[in-house]
Amino acid sequence: LNFSSDNSYGVADEIMAAVVAANRGAAVSYGGDDWSTRVSARFAELFEHEVEVFLVPTGTAANALSVATLTPAHGAVFCHAESHIHLEECGACEFYALGARLVPVGGFAGRMTVPGLKAALARYPGIRHDLVPSALSLTQSTECGTVYPVDEIAALAGLAHENGLGVHMDGARFANAAAALGHAPADITWRAGIDILSFGATKNGAIAAEAVIVFDRARGRDLFHRRKRGGLLVSKTRFLAAQLEAYLADDLWLRLASHANAMAARLATGLASLPAVRLAWPVEANEVFPVLPCALAAKLRKSGAVFHDWTASGLAGTEHAPSPDECLVRMVTSFRTEAGDIDALIAAARRLAGGN
Amino acid sequence: LNFSSDNSYGVADEIMAAVVAANRGAAVSYGGDDWSTRVSARFAELFEHEVEVFLVPTGTAANALSVATLTPAHGAVFCHAESHIHLEECGACEFYALGARLVPVGGFAGRMTVPGLKAALARYPGIRHDLVPSALSLTQSTECGTVYPVDEIAALAGLAHENGLGVHMDGARFANAAAALGHAPADITWRAGIDILSFGATKNGAIAAEAVIVFDRARGRDLFHRRKRGGLLVSKTRFLAAQLEAYLADDLWLRLASHANAMAARLATGLASLPAVRLAWPVEANEVFPVLPCALAAKLRKSGAVFHDWTASGLAGTEHAPSPDECLVRMVTSFRTEAGDIDALIAAARRLAGGN
Amino acid sequence: LNFSSDNSYGVADEIMAAVVAANRGAAVSYGGDDWSTRVSARFAELFEHEVEVFLVPTGTAANALSVATLTPAHGAVFCHAESHIHLEECGACEFYALGARLVPVGGFAGRMTVPGLKAALARYPGIRHDLVPSALSLTQSTECGTVYPVDEIAALAGLAHENGLGVHMDGARFANAAAALGHAPADITWRAGIDILSFGATKNGAIAAEAVIVFDRARGRDLFHRRKRGGLLVSKTRFLAAQLEAYLADDLWLRLASHANAMAARLATGLASLPAVRLAWPVEANEVFPVLPCALAAKLRKSGAVFHDWTASGLAGTEHAPSPDECLVRMVTSFRTEAGDIDALIAAARRLAGGN
Amino acid sequence: LNFSSDNSYGVADEIMAAVVAANRGAAVSYGGDDWSTRVSARFAELFEHEVEVFLVPTGTAANALSVATLTPAHGAVFCHAESHIHLEECGACEFYALGARLVPVGGFAGRMTVPGLKAALARYPGIRHDLVPSALSLTQSTECGTVYPVDEIAALAGLAHENGLGVHMDGARFANAAAALGHAPADITWRAGIDILSFGATKNGAIAAEAVIVFDRARGRDLFHRRKRGGLLVSKTRFLAAQLEAYLADDLWLRLASHANAMAARLATGLASLPAVRLAWPVEANEVFPVLPCALAAKLRKSGAVFHDWTASGLAGTEHAPSPDECLVRMVTSFRTEAGDIDALIAAARRLAGGN
Repeated sequence: LNFSSDNSYGVADEIMAAVVAANRGAAVSYGGDDWSTRVSARFAELFEHEVEVFLVPTGTAANALSVATLTPAHGAVFCHAESHIHLEECGACEFYALGARLVPVGGFAGRMTVPGLKAALARYPGIRHDLVPSALSLTQSTECGTVYPVDEIAALAGLAHENGLGVHMDGARFANAAAALGHAPADITWRAGIDILSFGATKNGAIAAEAVIVFDRARGRDLFHRRKRGGLLVSKTRFLAAQLEAYLADDLWLRLASHANAMAARLATGLASLPAVRLAWPVEANEVFPVLPCALAAKLRKSGAVFHDWTASGLAGTEHAPSPDECLVRMVTSFRTEAGDIDALIAAARRLAGGN
Repeated sequence: LNFSSDNSYGVADEIMAAVVAANRGAAVSYGGDDWSTRVSARFAELFEHEVEVFLVPTGTAANALSVATLTPAHGAVFCHAESHIHLEECGACEFYALGARLVPVGGFAGRMTVPGLKAALARYPGIRHDLVPSALSLTQSTECGTVYPVDEIAALAGLAHENGLGVHMDGARFANAAAALGHAPADITWRAGIDILSFGATKNGAIAAEAVIVFDRARGRDLFHRRKRGGLLVSKTRFLAAQLEAYLADDLWLRLASHANAMAARLATGLASLPAVRLAWPVEANEVFPVLPCALAAKLRKSGAVFHDWTASGLAGTEHAPSPDECLVRMVTSFRTEAGDIDALIAAARRLAGGN
Repeated sequence: LNFSSDNSYGVADEIMAAVVAANRGAAVSYGGDDWSTRVSARFAELFEHEVEVFLVPTGTAANALSVATLTPAHGAVFCHAESHIHLEECGACEFYALGARLVPVGGFAGRMTVPGLKAALARYPGIRHDLVPSALSLTQSTECGTVYPVDEIAALAGLAHENGLGVHMDGARFANAAAALGHAPADITWRAGIDILSFGATKNGAIAAEAVIVFDRARGRDLFHRRKRGGLLVSKTRFLAAQLEAYLADDLWLRLASHANAMAARLATGLASLPAVRLAWPVEANEVFPVLPCALAAKLRKSGAVFHDWTASGLAGTEHAPSPDECLVRMVTSFRTEAGDIDALIAAARRLAGGN
Repeated sequence: LNFSSDNSYGVADEIMAAVVAANRGAAVSYGGDDWSTRVSARFAELFEHEVEVFLVPTGTAANALSVATLTPAHGAVFCHAESHIHLEECGACEFYALGARLVPVGGFAGRMTVPGLKAALARYPGIRHDLVPSALSLTQSTECGTVYPVDEIAALAGLAHENGLGVHMDGARFANAAAALGHAPADITWRAGIDILSFGATKNGAIAAEAVIVFDRARGRDLFHRRKRGGLLVSKTRFLAAQLEAYLADDLWLRLASHANAMAARLATGLASLPAVRLAWPVEANEVFPVLPCALAAKLRKSGAVFHDWTASGLAGTEHAPSPDECLVRMVTSFRTEAGDIDALIAAARRLAGGN
């Protein structure tokens, strides 16, 4: 009953098999191998667009490189206050962007709004003693388990472009969003105004493989050097590329994400049926954020369930804010979560909550 | 007949098997897994010393983090002019050390000397308008395929410590040096004055796994944050740790390196027996640097051999400097190189060089 | 009728005379001169404490060096959302602190509160993937023309110290605060928990002279190198030190500031007597922030008055927030402002506002 | 008898008078004042070229901003091994250039040669794992008191441009070079290939005033933000601009430098006439580098002369290298040095050298 993180589970069998299969003969290192060539072509096909592809071993690296290439050191980068780049990457964006600033923007359920972004931009008019507004970073699916509709992405990206900003999408859980939206990858990225995408695979079944996808080549010019300089260019690139090749083959990425999403929906439905539990935010991807009595959370853990507490600061002032004896927790489902585990958790919660 | 790089070959079977075996059940991410705990303990045992261990996916990352933790941004870090951190890592050390300076120090065959280091230190007296001498980085085995004797390491590290510098060892090919020297790992590291070690595994059979080994805990305090900030903390750490666990088990690391070294010795002996070929530097690890007629190098490549040209700047003014129609090349052997391939290369060289 | 900035006026006569007088004979450069020695001693006496003193030519430099010495690159520095370091220094703190983050904290009238700081700290619990809370920066007097009472400084600094943070005071207008509070400089700095102070003189009559005053010597260790590296160590330091020597002599600094404060009080009283005008924040130092009809502001400017518009974002949701046809403006008085100018401005405002 | 530094003397009377005169009435701060406008126009006239002008208080700042605007963080900047930016600015260039590397290039008497620069460039071929060669910095007059002829500057700048590098001139002593060469400022800067110039005034009579002169506007785009971010934008810019206005008026800058040069020539002639003394390098500007018996240097100091020891590493292997009982020292003349002082020093040296 482990719902702690999509990183806690292992690796999808197809991906591991591809890595094992790649261990054959000599191959050029540092990206000159056939796997890397093929996976770049595959990404171009998938996104219906010429792309530059930079493979890296972590999502933090993908985000930081992406943001860094969009901003000068004296730039201001707008992101959601709850976003991963703002709160959980130890300032990697500031490091790779050589001291640029992340400007937190609020918004319910992990989603920025156009008025919210406008207000934040108004604080950085770009007159001469200020930092220069340079980039917008959107997270899809969000840290709150929600998904931006395409028109919201387009509206935010449009506002950003009008103000001269480049637009990044943190897609650590891009597969979950794509599966939820059902649109073509192109429609929810460059056609909606995304200039550069962190395309995640690790949380959805890879060992350690993420891709920076550059839709506007002019923006990605120096990424080769930035990646190397960051110690992020692995030498035996074939093993990184092989993971992504398997991930993209036969829509594996979407199949894995759809399963995780379905498990989250099942979990959400079950939890919402309990009188003592309510959901902080709509469940649109593979994360569920129940507000529940702290006593119940403790009992569930004692019974073997694993999940993390979550900060309720994003709920402050809303109807969903926890009361003093309530807790907000996060439960994440993965490509490997089984329906039986969901049902067992719900049954345990019902038993432990109710006395019935 | 591929002698281009120790990164060109794949992964040792024992290591791949360990990765596959680790793909079982849930595990805590970000270093909290059992594999990581065990591998840290194993390193302490191997080095007969308490250690802090930080696993990262690349050697450049290991070096840059190590150097960065030894120097302030206004520090000067002394390294060999031919060293990997100086010439082939795109300034990763300067990036992680937030603008500190690498000071190149000369020395024959990739090895710094005590007088050479003294002269370099004299240029940085540490008076108030200068950068502050902060660290020494030694490479073992060196970029020229040579190995520092223990007493030379101790002498250089001693001089560094006298001057207040911390001492780093770039051990991307530490296994080859350890196998060549036959000493205990402790004897050639902390007992000789090394404060922090980049312990490489990737070149010697891993997928992508290096360890920063901190012998002086006070020095490694902020490495956790620096690693995360660099996007270098992989989420599913068990797969990184599993590689190193297998690598250290049953002396696999030394067995693989000993094989590579033996192949290099066989190659060196064979090449040296050809009148048209001489060796630029002694062959003490797994790299061979022949000076040969450029025409012969071209013929060998046409016949299928793969190897890189190498800069001869380190030979300038010595008896080994190539004449205008000679080339310096690098041939690297690996854990997977076969004696038959060596013999085939030598036979080809003899045939192509000699007309006989 | 220039109320645009305390930088618009020139230099106090005593200070200019000291600079002219210092132009005599040879002197050691880079801080080895007698003026520098004397001014350091004078600061120690003034603050009743051993101090390290670092003279620099700008307030931005003083702030950035101070903050940088209190934080690692992976640190979080808490400051008021309206503070100069956050909004008007082009990210100088992030630059000098090598990528550390400024965390904006709200609070009425430019003043942070203990609950506000607590809430901000709660977002940076210092667990391992986060930035490490490292410093607090307070502005005295504030950007809103208010002054922290000593007990509020002590409470905020106390909370900071409990959490392991160092405490900086941006004293670009320290003289105005000191004059307003009437306490000994020691009482409103180190005795209240300030570890490092940007002691401003430029806004209050110097040409270009600010001092970083380090009360905790351990914290200032690397400031000499940081200052040099920032290009902030002027060569002919005697002319910088001479300004500060004159500034501190015979309480000139307090006399100049008291005058500016008195002029601000006179201006505030006069403006508040007009029905069309109200004051956004209490006037406690040398800045006045009237909310007035935009039409009136335009007429005042046409009549020759010079002052800046100011962002009203800090008033959002309060009773003082401007209505759509009202504007928030800033009027600054200086050591050189004359009572006649104040009275003329008020008379003009009365005439232009009233139709009479 | 103070020959320690051109910074040891005070300020030229015309410049001090201009500062005093500027202290009148209100003026726009941060560069919007009339003095700044006039001085920019004057520079355009002087250099016969449209220019962007950025005033800063130190030469280190001027150099670091200039170099930073020519290089990405992953760039390599070529400079003379003895240059001020390399040895005496505490890594300011690396700081402002966000971690770019200074690559030291040798060359007799502080001057780089075309073959020397070619060899250095060959070490940075710009293939993908290397730093990218980005800029060349030349010092005029040099740290050894010599002056590049115009054709040497043109040849070096030409080689740099062919390789895609921007070209900076460190002109901390530009006036001394201009006075020595007798060419128009345009001829020895942009017409010879200089893209950006640190135009110094402080060493030649100003209080603290240097100008970054950008000849290629595209290169200087972000200097406004970089200067502000570095804490280098003084608020009361009129006092900085007034210094430079006076400096450029009526060729004051050339008159002051010509005097200093003449005094150095007089000193050189006198010293060279002593059998115990020889000159390390030709005296072409305002610095003299005698090699003399250490005992004589000590006696001269005891008699009241002030001058610095200098590193002889640049003389290693040449006929001028000091013997073990000889010392290399530096004697600097300034706009204020008097012929009588020169003659007194020579007389003292003759007396003390002679055993009589």
